[in-house]
Amino acid sequence: MTDAQARLIVEAQRTLGPKAVLTDAADIAPWATDWRGRVHGATPAILAPASTEEVAAIVKLAAEHRVPLVPQGGNTGMSAGATPPADGSALLLSLRRMNRIRSVRAEERIAVAEAGVILETLHDAANDVGMRFPLTLGARGSCTIGGLASTNAGGTQVLKFGTMRALVAGVEAVLPDGSIHSGLSGLKKDNRGYSIDQLLIGAEGTLGVVTAVALRLVPAVAARGVAWAGVDTPARALELWRYLEARTDSIEGFELVPQDSLALVLKHIRGTRLPLDGEHRWHVLIEATTPEAGTSIGAELERLLGDALNRGIIGNAVPASNESQAEAFWKIRDSISEAERAEGQTLAHDISVAVADMPRFIVEASEQVERAFPGVIASGFGHLGDGNIHFHVRAGSHAAPDWYEAEGAEITRFVDDLVTVAGGSISAEHGIGQLKRIEFARLADPARVHALRAIKQALDPLGIMNPGKLVP
Amino acid sequence: MTDAQARLIVEAQRTLGPKAVLTDAADIAPWATDWRGRVHGATPAILAPASTEEVAAIVKLAAEHRVPLVPQGGNTGMSAGATPPADGSALLLSLRRMNRIRSVRAEERIAVAEAGVILETLHDAANDVGMRFPLTLGARGSCTIGGLASTNAGGTQVLKFGTMRALVAGVEAVLPDGSIHSGLSGLKKDNRGYSIDQLLIGAEGTLGVVTAVALRLVPAVAARGVAWAGVDTPARALELWRYLEARTDSIEGFELVPQDSLALVLKHIRGTRLPLDGEHRWHVLIEATTPEAGTSIGAELERLLGDALNRGIIGNAVPASNESQAEAFWKIRDSISEAERAEGQTLAHDISVAVADMPRFIVEASEQVERAFPGVIASGFGHLGDGNIHFHVRAGSHAAPDWYEAEGAEITRFVDDLVTVAGGSISAEHGIGQLKRIEFARLADPARVHALRAIKQALDPLGIMNPGKLVP
Repeated sequence: MTDAQARLIVEAQRTLGPKAVLTDAADIAPWATDWRGRVHGATPAILAPASTEEVAAIVKLAAEHRVPLVPQGGNTGMSAGATPPADGSALLLSLRRMNRIRSVRAEERIAVAEAGVILETLHDAANDVGMRFPLTLGARGSCTIGGLASTNAGGTQVLKFGTMRALVAGVEAVLPDGSIHSGLSGLKKDNRGYSIDQLLIGAEGTLGVVTAVALRLVPAVAARGVAWAGVDTPARALELWRYLEARTDSIEGFELVPQDSLALVLKHIRGTRLPLDGEHRWHVLIEATTPEAGTSIGAELERLLGDALNRGIIGNAVPASNESQAEAFWKIRDSISEAERAEGQTLAHDISVAVADMPRFIVEASEQVERAFPGVIASGFGHLGDGNIHFHVRAGSHAAPDWYEAEGAEITRFVDDLVTVAGGSISAEHGIGQLKRIEFARLADPARVHALRAIKQALDPLGIMNPGKLVP
Repeated sequence: MTDAQARLIVEAQRTLGPKAVLTDAADIAPWATDWRGRVHGATPAILAPASTEEVAAIVKLAAEHRVPLVPQGGNTGMSAGATPPADGSALLLSLRRMNRIRSVRAEERIAVAEAGVILETLHDAANDVGMRFPLTLGARGSCTIGGLASTNAGGTQVLKFGTMRALVAGVEAVLPDGSIHSGLSGLKKDNRGYSIDQLLIGAEGTLGVVTAVALRLVPAVAARGVAWAGVDTPARALELWRYLEARTDSIEGFELVPQDSLALVLKHIRGTRLPLDGEHRWHVLIEATTPEAGTSIGAELERLLGDALNRGIIGNAVPASNESQAEAFWKIRDSISEAERAEGQTLAHDISVAVADMPRFIVEASEQVERAFPGVIASGFGHLGDGNIHFHVRAGSHAAPDWYEAEGAEITRFVDDLVTVAGGSISAEHGIGQLKRIEFARLADPARVHALRAIKQALDPLGIMNPGKLVP
């Protein structure tokens, strides 16, 4: 611990109270390693303010003592953006105690939640007033609103409602100089210069600490219809998406699943069963919802899929006949990563290309990877309608135990090169954090790198906000 | 003309060709004064590049010679953001020759238009493929896509589709160092750091020159229903909006009109007539649309208004019985400013407060202004559902001919103070430009001013991009 850190810790104890400052190694350990357990950081203390004013006080002290801070919510990020550096040079700033839902107004369709509110808690609060916050993802039971905003999180409902960028109506944040940016006024229209709110969304805590967020709500779901369809190719799956999109705006989930992934789920995940008879090389899980009670959305989805079958777009389809079957379909989709891990070593790439280009990309990139690295199995699954898939490369059955460490970086560079040539993004929804920073630096447009560095330097000249993350 | 300007003009003539550089006073004059004719600028030349590369070349030359540039599209802005400074220190950079629509893809629901494309031209191009670009406003026949993005323009359809910020899928721009930011990849999801696109939207050309924009399209309108309703108070009008919003998502226009404004339109605008019998202190113009053919949207709107009448929310309502009556209703709304000008001097304030607070704001602020400045008539009209109204103060019949110049600034300060106390914005959709810069500086949160200045300095350290605009 440096002298500056020690002084900051003492002053933080005075400002926040002794219980809000954790210095015991056992208390710190779970939060110093990223969610996947791959990146191990170190820090002498966790500071846990309970209010925006306390966050501001801590940031001012950090600036004064030149001690960097790493903001952290639920520690569920996929790119280690909330993991402190391994050299112990930074303190963790935990937002978990800022967990009040300040307001939920159905009439205004707005909820204001502090950074530490867990996503599922917000879902419940919206539901209590007949509304819904439509963003959701696997980590909903532990991820926090501040982290979701800071990473511009996506998930399975982006198709209809967009990422956090589209769902945030305002941001409150402490800027690196300790000043408070108050964007929670609830104005629907405000053209007074650059949008600081939008700059903070997706900034991964490198430009300030998000302390509260105003979120758009939509009417609660009154009914949903879920179906599973089999198709020959990803191109046919996209054709199905275009067909549905042109006829209804009720589709909010459209997930592509390759046969290979389905087979792994059936092999490794207890209680799962084949959703659809027959042989299909690719599958699509479709969810339609409506906020209007009394609408037979399931029947409507079934009718559309019947027509798509007659047109030869799909090979077959089956609607979920009840809620438990709908859940069973979703369980297959949500278990793919787990099944892959059970099968062996897997390299995950969260990538996007233009929607129209994705079917060809999946097929060609899989072939190219399998040719370049004999023995591996490559495939893509996920949010086809958003042009975003999880392109996973699995070690073959004869791979060495250290395959991931030995070959992972080279395979990832190969995949990232293919994505870049296709005009895509090497981070569609997981952000850059620490894990993708080197690849980002290698592949980013120099004009973009220059602009990012200039903005970072302008707003955080002392470099105290989440150093070593995002900015190449 | 300075030596540096003279050198830049010679080099621009070489780079762009002599016809793309205007130095004749008569050619320059129409573009050196703002649209309202209130702010008179001066410049030795207009440079009119025809491609992104030419814009980049000009920006690099401007940086080299330290000559500021003022980007300009259709010159229809309301805050003189595209008017050059009066001292002639800057050159005008006209984007009007960059007027290609690069692509319109119905299936992708995206159009890519260069900065100089006129809004109405884009409307037509989208319509040709069965789609629609849903943002529209009075100046659609002359405003340009680049200007709309740079000012985060709004208009009458924001209620359903949002401002430009929600409709822009990507931005191409030349940054102040002459580098090209290419955000037109068409990716729906991309989390590679700060959103430069979002930073450029609403930046009024102070951080770079927008050269092309990817725009979201929606399905074309198959049918619309338009109606006029009379209500007792703005609070009742908002109650009507909440009532409709809870029952349909087809409403895309909801415009509040005070009786005073209606009377002026009937008095001054030829061919207009009373839309609804009876005495009503306030009025609402409502438009519902649907992309689905065969839907009787007009009948549905009529049924909802009948129910609202039974509930006592409205005093009366009449549906437009055909397209020409619908156009007649809209003509009343669109003629308010013209009618006010015909009546006498008018001070316009484009303001917003939280939607729920707007009814009370309109009533109380009108009373306070009329009490503080005896003889004036204050009222608000416009986008009630967005919390954005045009709060206009008219000189009474006994006002001096120089009322606008003599009392305007003081009245505006009074109004802006009321807006600020109410937590609102002194610029809901018109931006800051030159006209609101002093008031913005007076009333803005210091943390916000600091952040804006830091970002401006970081991306435009030489101060060559639209100096004297927006940033306080």
